[in-house]
Amino acid sequence: MRGRGEKLEAALTARELDRYLVTDLTNVRYLTGFTGTNGAVVCGPETRLFLTDFRYTERAEAEVSEWETVTITADWLGGIAERLQGKVGFEDDQMSVRMLAKLTEKLGEGTELAAAGGEVEKLRRVKDDEELAAIREASKLGEEAWRWALERGLKGRTERDVALATEAKIRELGGEPSFPAIVATGPNGALPHAEPGERVIADGELVVFDMGAKLDGYCSDGTRTFAVGEPGDKGREVYEAVLRAQLAALEAIEAGPNGEAIDTVARDLITEAGYGEAFGHALGHGVGLEVHEGPRLAQKSEDVLAPGEVVTVEPGIYLAGELGVRIEDFVVVREGGYENLSSLPKELTIVD
Amino acid sequence: MRGRGEKLEAALTARELDRYLVTDLTNVRYLTGFTGTNGAVVCGPETRLFLTDFRYTERAEAEVSEWETVTITADWLGGIAERLQGKVGFEDDQMSVRMLAKLTEKLGEGTELAAAGGEVEKLRRVKDDEELAAIREASKLGEEAWRWALERGLKGRTERDVALATEAKIRELGGEPSFPAIVATGPNGALPHAEPGERVIADGELVVFDMGAKLDGYCSDGTRTFAVGEPGDKGREVYEAVLRAQLAALEAIEAGPNGEAIDTVARDLITEAGYGEAFGHALGHGVGLEVHEGPRLAQKSEDVLAPGEVVTVEPGIYLAGELGVRIEDFVVVREGGYENLSSLPKELTIVD
Repeated sequence: MRGRGEKLEAALTARELDRYLVTDLTNVRYLTGFTGTNGAVVCGPETRLFLTDFRYTERAEAEVSEWETVTITADWLGGIAERLQGKVGFEDDQMSVRMLAKLTEKLGEGTELAAAGGEVEKLRRVKDDEELAAIREASKLGEEAWRWALERGLKGRTERDVALATEAKIRELGGEPSFPAIVATGPNGALPHAEPGERVIADGELVVFDMGAKLDGYCSDGTRTFAVGEPGDKGREVYEAVLRAQLAALEAIEAGPNGEAIDTVARDLITEAGYGEAFGHALGHGVGLEVHEGPRLAQKSEDVLAPGEVVTVEPGIYLAGELGVRIEDFVVVREGGYENLSSLPKELTIVD
Repeated sequence: MRGRGEKLEAALTARELDRYLVTDLTNVRYLTGFTGTNGAVVCGPETRLFLTDFRYTERAEAEVSEWETVTITADWLGGIAERLQGKVGFEDDQMSVRMLAKLTEKLGEGTELAAAGGEVEKLRRVKDDEELAAIREASKLGEEAWRWALERGLKGRTERDVALATEAKIRELGGEPSFPAIVATGPNGALPHAEPGERVIADGELVVFDMGAKLDGYCSDGTRTFAVGEPGDKGREVYEAVLRAQLAALEAIEAGPNGEAIDTVARDLITEAGYGEAFGHALGHGVGLEVHEGPRLAQKSEDVLAPGEVVTVEPGIYLAGELGVRIEDFVVVREGGYENLSSLPKELTIVD
């Protein structure tokens, strides 16, 4: 957590705020290390307060350093209001209308609240070494579960069975799924948001398998599309088109370009292959404490890639009623290139 | 979902609102049956609109009836605003400050938004027959997993192993855990919010085992405290005190009394036994689409119990550094009594 309070303080000075109130629990965790379910942060010049209630005093002692822990015993919002002064930025994209109204009633004279969400999310985009180490471990764990699931076999099982078994394996290895695993076979592969169901994986089908693990709060995210038996000419053609786009977009990853530029590399190749309409989602997104965070690799995204950001690169082609293919790595952005956090092979793999 | 729109319309007429905008997804599901991750409802006289985006058109067709489905293609908030008119109640306890600001910008002339959260939650308190059937199924599934975990044995296993295995069993049976299972042995039992850890369950310890299953959206919730071997005089004394309080509070459950009255029945008995300070939480809460919802059985709760409400009855005694005991059933409130949805025995059970 070292130095994160300082970075936040710098950001709020730039916005002419006297204090910043953080109520989103993921942001609180990022700043302080606290993993409980009730906490808030007040940050400002010479102010590093972490607020929680009596249930978490012990946990805060174990988890939170560099921030002064204050246990609020009775009136939670009153206890927060007491510690605010001047112009206070708050997370308007997180805080409910009701909470703002109640908190405003309790403010002292001369204190005002100003909508200023997203400051911690901006800091979270660039990962430090400690975070990258955690993400690498999460990826390793996720891929171990993945390999196990492939060795166990896909053919003849239901999507749901494969997804649940993989999630159970992740837990057995000490992690948590970072999102419900997607296993979508045959025509179901064409539904990017399909939930794994009772369809049995059959010979000649392509299976979209999207999964991630969470360890010590940090997520991994990856997708492979496997062929169960021979996928046929159309399957092979679509697979190769996605793979070409994925490899080209990966090679474009480095500090400097914006999210739209990278998305365009993949989108142009898929369009050239004749499947532009069939790539109906963005190329990628940041990964960290949340499996979806900034930056965005998408049309109209002006997010400029910076060293230490972790992003997915996941083009796909979805042919309704027929099949789907998606291939996804997640990588660390570096000066002049990237570090790939995904290690499973990407050439078309025929499995049982 | 039959008749839920009508009940909501009646509530908003009583509050002099022309329309009600529902954005909380659990409330949207309650009203319409929709299980996707983006949807909203606009309800009013002769107005039953369900709004979603193109990803969910197909799912809405399968799940939503009695509500007219509108697919919003581009501007989500603009699409909502177009369908609002007059004085529109919104869920201020759910909607973010930013969403309210953006939505307000897009309102037509003469349309205004009024903070009015909690109306659907009030309806949700009383379950109809369809909901009760779903909750009974969830309870059955949860208890099957529980019995399986007990037959498998507790002694010599870690808390985490027992919790994970039970959750995996719930999934295998076709459900989901309604919350992460709590397995807390020996002194850990005294921490009501303990996460299952590496402590090995040993002879002579009491194990607090709190778990629930979710099936078709509806939750179950129950706690038993098991003795692994002989728990000793103190363990037995505390167990009996909690059990007496639990049975007495159960017998007080019927339509009519308020939440404080029921809480007091249990609290007085535990206080008489000399453990008043050691019962540091409320007696119970409603259970339905969420594992914690209204009404509250607690000091200062004026919620009056009504037929069809589903509530937990879960007194506990927590002795720091020593042991904890909690016994929890969940029941349907009836005229003159209740229906118990929990069936596991409550006399002190000594297990391996």
